Amino acid sequence: MQAARLHEYTEDMSQALTVEEIDRPEITRSDGVVIEVEGAGWCQTDNHIIEGMWTDYVEQDLPMTLGHENAGEVVEVGEEVDLVGEGDKVICHPVMTCGKCRPCRLGQDMYCENLEFPGLTTDGGFAEYLFTSERSVIPLPEGVDTTDIAPHADAGITAYHAVKKADRELNPGDHAVVIGVGGLGHIGLQCLEAMSPVTITAIDLKEEARELAEELGAHHTVDPTSESVADAIDEITDGVGAQQVIDFVGRDETTAYGPDITAAGGDHHIVGYGGHVHQPSQTLVNGEFAYRGTLVGEYTELQELVALVERGDVELRTSRYDLDDVNTVAERLEHGEIEGRAVITP
Amino acid sequence: MQAARLHEYTEDMSQALTVEEIDRPEITRSDGVVIEVEGAGWCQTDNHIIEGMWTDYVEQDLPMTLGHENAGEVVEVGEEVDLVGEGDKVICHPVMTCGKCRPCRLGQDMYCENLEFPGLTTDGGFAEYLFTSERSVIPLPEGVDTTDIAPHADAGITAYHAVKKADRELNPGDHAVVIGVGGLGHIGLQCLEAMSPVTITAIDLKEEARELAEELGAHHTVDPTSESVADAIDEITDGVGAQQVIDFVGRDETTAYGPDITAAGGDHHIVGYGGHVHQPSQTLVNGEFAYRGTLVGEYTELQELVALVERGDVELRTSRYDLDDVNTVAERLEHGEIEGRAVITP
Amino acid sequence: MQAARLHEYTEDMSQALTVEEIDRPEITRSDGVVIEVEGAGWCQTDNHIIEGMWTDYVEQDLPMTLGHENAGEVVEVGEEVDLVGEGDKVICHPVMTCGKCRPCRLGQDMYCENLEFPGLTTDGGFAEYLFTSERSVIPLPEGVDTTDIAPHADAGITAYHAVKKADRELNPGDHAVVIGVGGLGHIGLQCLEAMSPVTITAIDLKEEARELAEELGAHHTVDPTSESVADAIDEITDGVGAQQVIDFVGRDETTAYGPDITAAGGDHHIVGYGGHVHQPSQTLVNGEFAYRGTLVGEYTELQELVALVERGDVELRTSRYDLDDVNTVAERLEHGEIEGRAVITP
Amino acid sequence: MQAARLHEYTEDMSQALTVEEIDRPEITRSDGVVIEVEGAGWCQTDNHIIEGMWTDYVEQDLPMTLGHENAGEVVEVGEEVDLVGEGDKVICHPVMTCGKCRPCRLGQDMYCENLEFPGLTTDGGFAEYLFTSERSVIPLPEGVDTTDIAPHADAGITAYHAVKKADRELNPGDHAVVIGVGGLGHIGLQCLEAMSPVTITAIDLKEEARELAEELGAHHTVDPTSESVADAIDEITDGVGAQQVIDFVGRDETTAYGPDITAAGGDHHIVGYGGHVHQPSQTLVNGEFAYRGTLVGEYTELQELVALVERGDVELRTSRYDLDDVNTVAERLEHGEIEGRAVITP
Repeated sequence: MQAARLHEYTEDMSQALTVEEIDRPEITRSDGVVIEVEGAGWCQTDNHIIEGMWTDYVEQDLPMTLGHENAGEVVEVGEEVDLVGEGDKVICHPVMTCGKCRPCRLGQDMYCENLEFPGLTTDGGFAEYLFTSERSVIPLPEGVDTTDIAPHADAGITAYHAVKKADRELNPGDHAVVIGVGGLGHIGLQCLEAMSPVTITAIDLKEEARELAEELGAHHTVDPTSESVADAIDEITDGVGAQQVIDFVGRDETTAYGPDITAAGGDHHIVGYGGHVHQPSQTLVNGEFAYRGTLVGEYTELQELVALVERGDVELRTSRYDLDDVNTVAERLEHGEIEGRAVITP
Repeated sequence: MQAARLHEYTEDMSQALTVEEIDRPEITRSDGVVIEVEGAGWCQTDNHIIEGMWTDYVEQDLPMTLGHENAGEVVEVGEEVDLVGEGDKVICHPVMTCGKCRPCRLGQDMYCENLEFPGLTTDGGFAEYLFTSERSVIPLPEGVDTTDIAPHADAGITAYHAVKKADRELNPGDHAVVIGVGGLGHIGLQCLEAMSPVTITAIDLKEEARELAEELGAHHTVDPTSESVADAIDEITDGVGAQQVIDFVGRDETTAYGPDITAAGGDHHIVGYGGHVHQPSQTLVNGEFAYRGTLVGEYTELQELVALVERGDVELRTSRYDLDDVNTVAERLEHGEIEGRAVITP
Repeated sequence: MQAARLHEYTEDMSQALTVEEIDRPEITRSDGVVIEVEGAGWCQTDNHIIEGMWTDYVEQDLPMTLGHENAGEVVEVGEEVDLVGEGDKVICHPVMTCGKCRPCRLGQDMYCENLEFPGLTTDGGFAEYLFTSERSVIPLPEGVDTTDIAPHADAGITAYHAVKKADRELNPGDHAVVIGVGGLGHIGLQCLEAMSPVTITAIDLKEEARELAEELGAHHTVDPTSESVADAIDEITDGVGAQQVIDFVGRDETTAYGPDITAAGGDHHIVGYGGHVHQPSQTLVNGEFAYRGTLVGEYTELQELVALVERGDVELRTSRYDLDDVNTVAERLEHGEIEGRAVITP
Repeated sequence: MQAARLHEYTEDMSQALTVEEIDRPEITRSDGVVIEVEGAGWCQTDNHIIEGMWTDYVEQDLPMTLGHENAGEVVEVGEEVDLVGEGDKVICHPVMTCGKCRPCRLGQDMYCENLEFPGLTTDGGFAEYLFTSERSVIPLPEGVDTTDIAPHADAGITAYHAVKKADRELNPGDHAVVIGVGGLGHIGLQCLEAMSPVTITAIDLKEEARELAEELGAHHTVDPTSESVADAIDEITDGVGAQQVIDFVGRDETTAYGPDITAAGGDHHIVGYGGHVHQPSQTLVNGEFAYRGTLVGEYTELQELVALVERGDVELRTSRYDLDDVNTVAERLEHGEIEGRAVITP
């Protein structure tokens, strides 16, 4: 089958992946599932992987097929699989978990002690077929398009997971700030709008992104190049600050907003990455302020997100690309030229 | 009356405060309370105030009497006070709150929009008498010594507040790390031991502090000068990491431990300050790790801490000093030569 | 001034209250507030008070002016009041709290150890003027009509409080059931719709109430006289049951639904009262099921509800009556002939 | 092998079970585990099963081997089991769960949609060998005796689960009441003492049980036959009531205590069963009071309880009996003549 594979870490996105012929995956475990990939979202993390940013955090054997936002049709299952069968349309939670360690037993899939992460630590979905496991697949309700929904597999539940953490701390009358209205941010904004009756302010450098934010329910938008973010939030919140800040960018400039725009006791959730958090300890103490890293959501959170999609509360902005176009996508994303989410259709 | 006052910010602790004669405070509000100070704890924050570290965060009019850990006997009350009367022994919550703003109505005293903080923004307790308000005083159970308990007014509830946040996330079988077993740390350790049946590891540079930690219930201690903190915690926790880390130091070296010693989803609570937090955003994301600043606890938490003291669960290590010795105390603390907590007895 | 007062407990609603001339309340405390009543909602609890149902729970000195859902204009304030001034439009939280006891310090207004409850334990708002305290009043945003919003003072925050408790346990994809779409239920339904993206089923005997429920966002309605409630919920939830049930009726028949229609681990919130809860202990154990009583919400919850009203998320169905019509209202409510909420305009 | 089996529901405990020869269980699934039973606790629920009290709640095919509190040594495992191997000492979580349904994915084992419950719905551990699954077994730390720990498999985690729910609502200075200091209660009391620094009052009819309670950490005990429970708790709590009540009995008399002895906003947890809850809805509303049923704890909670046992925080009072003595045990328990917990050693 055809697959887009990473052979060497590089900063040159035009040479990032090689599309080549490899063997179709086979069922090797009683709970194995092989799907024919109908949509595989391209994620900022794919660029980061290509640049080698993940080598300090996980083990990677190159060459490796990337692609961790996958949806498609089941074509083969292991002998003890009963949750899905051939022909079922599914979305894949991005990780394969053991189901036996304490984190798995607590429902914390991402903390699994025996985690495999297709597209990050094993072969992913930029290919015609993908090997995954029963614990990773969620059958889709009728009428949901696999290509359209694919990016929810990672971008979606990552955004949803961050919003769910923020929502627990929010009450009507409160303010929330969304930093970055791109692939993840535009989903997060819609989840927030559906779950929390609060006032939402979106911050983005790009005018189209701010316009999209307003369409999707933001009550205010801020352009950080033309006005002071701190002043803008101060005015919007009557000097109190936002109770929750969700940062889908995670660069030095955006993490620095936190203490200036957050109400006492509030949180700045770090979803995007690329830069650093850097503050005096005293600043965290004085405002009882927190930087809270946030990871991909759990399997059950993907179920919840699919429910939101089915309700019509969350709509993805996607554009479709052939497998051969992967490097074009990589380059465009690098230059901020992708709106919403790019989906590869192998 | 005699009072120890700050006239000028300085790094020279031998010249920090001036003991001088000023007017005794008077009742100017219907909810006012004047107490004769019987104990006023000296806090690391007093050194930070003297150095001018708080000028960016609050307004201070010098000269000002320091001292924010106060206990003593009520000598006069405003006309609408009914919670206490003349002769009652009380401990003072460190801040005077309005009771009317939304944070006050939520019980979040430290976020009060009209906060006054004796010893930080108004005259404090390194003096014979202190002016405070009915909302700040907690009557003490019989038999509790005001001088002994005074440091709980700030050190105590700050430590307790941090531990209470950590305790909510801890389960039997989990691991907690306490960094710094000084004035706050030795209280926090005892609160943790009383509230959470977990395995506790204490980290401190000083041998006596580590010995104290063991006496007070730490299951393991680590000397960061003789072994790798990361390796030590890795071994103690079987490679999982500690679910919660409480950092009573907050220097660059200690905040850096967090990501290496914390289990997935865990928190590094910043209580002490002086240094910075500095990490790649990706590190926070990868381990779903948080730096959570933690402030002084609430009025009701001081009630809870007094209950722990009454049970015999928390014992303060204190040493007593005359008002004239304030600068000696300031210097000794600067050089790490105070064990437990110094209490001024004006 | 004119006031509608209860002189004797009675089952005969046509003789319930007497409209008579009494003295206007005066400011007797430094935090006192007198308002000119512009709207005072009539509540099912008023009928219960008239019947003597509250004599076992609180002390009542008859004659007493009823009316605990009050809004109006401030006409006089005590000398230490600064939250509001003459001419301000306010809604009144139903209770006067001391602000000093532990529950008050925790923000739990309804558990205040020195509670006064105008209209239940002291004179209420079915009168031209009402005496209350600074801690009870919330200034209204411009453009909000006092008469329209009055019922939120009790019906509103009671419904909101119950929904907030349920919302904490609900996730997208879950099911919630609302029993009774009358004065409280039609508010609760809107709060739920605004806060929780779940599937909502409303149960009511009356066709108009079920139609109103559908207008306000219910996804399903059930008429308990024409079909089995248990079967209906079983079908709607695919046999899983509703995660949360909010019972605005609280009669024997409705409390009995709980175990049959609730998912494992779910709650049946008792808001309305009049009947009993009666079940084998084993039923509660087997489904890890709870009956949770729910009281009036807190002051800060009334702030949150006002924010929802300002957003346009919650709209009250009200009808206005003169003070002289109080007994007509009492009778109509007794016979289920009031839609939405009746508001007295003294 | 020998097994004690129920052939017919009966009130006559002397004829309850028949000890007879049946086939040893075999591995029929890839995740199957067969253990040689070294301890099987006898539970009040076994008496209830024998009486037919569970026929309304679950399906039972008689004859069936009872026994759901099992520990022993692994003698055979299915081909995909890797958590344990032959010779390992284990305690068994009482239920076999699918690991695939949403409740399982949330960590809520007891709500599994495909639950099997050995000793309640399939053959249990009053036999030489027991069939269970990998998801049910927890390897024991060295030095823990399987016979001693067996009752924790159900009695233990049921008590622990209830206490954990109560502990979340308790703060230092609060009061908790434990009703019934028998098989479950004496474990619950120790868990509470280890986890919550609160004042504990134990209520029991029997003098020995009250003495045991005092030994295990109760600060007060109440004999309901010689004094009014309401008056006693009123005095102990200065009229405030207990914040949490844990009822290990669940009879009509004990569930009736709740509203009288519980502080505003408090909970009465129903663990034991046999009687009813019966109260006016108004009583639940007025005190914002809840009856919360509580079921067996989760797999991860059994891990936590094993950690408490290893720390020495919880000690079981057990007495050992041969398999042939099962009916003697059933009778003695019926007459309240078993102290602590009876363990069958097949």
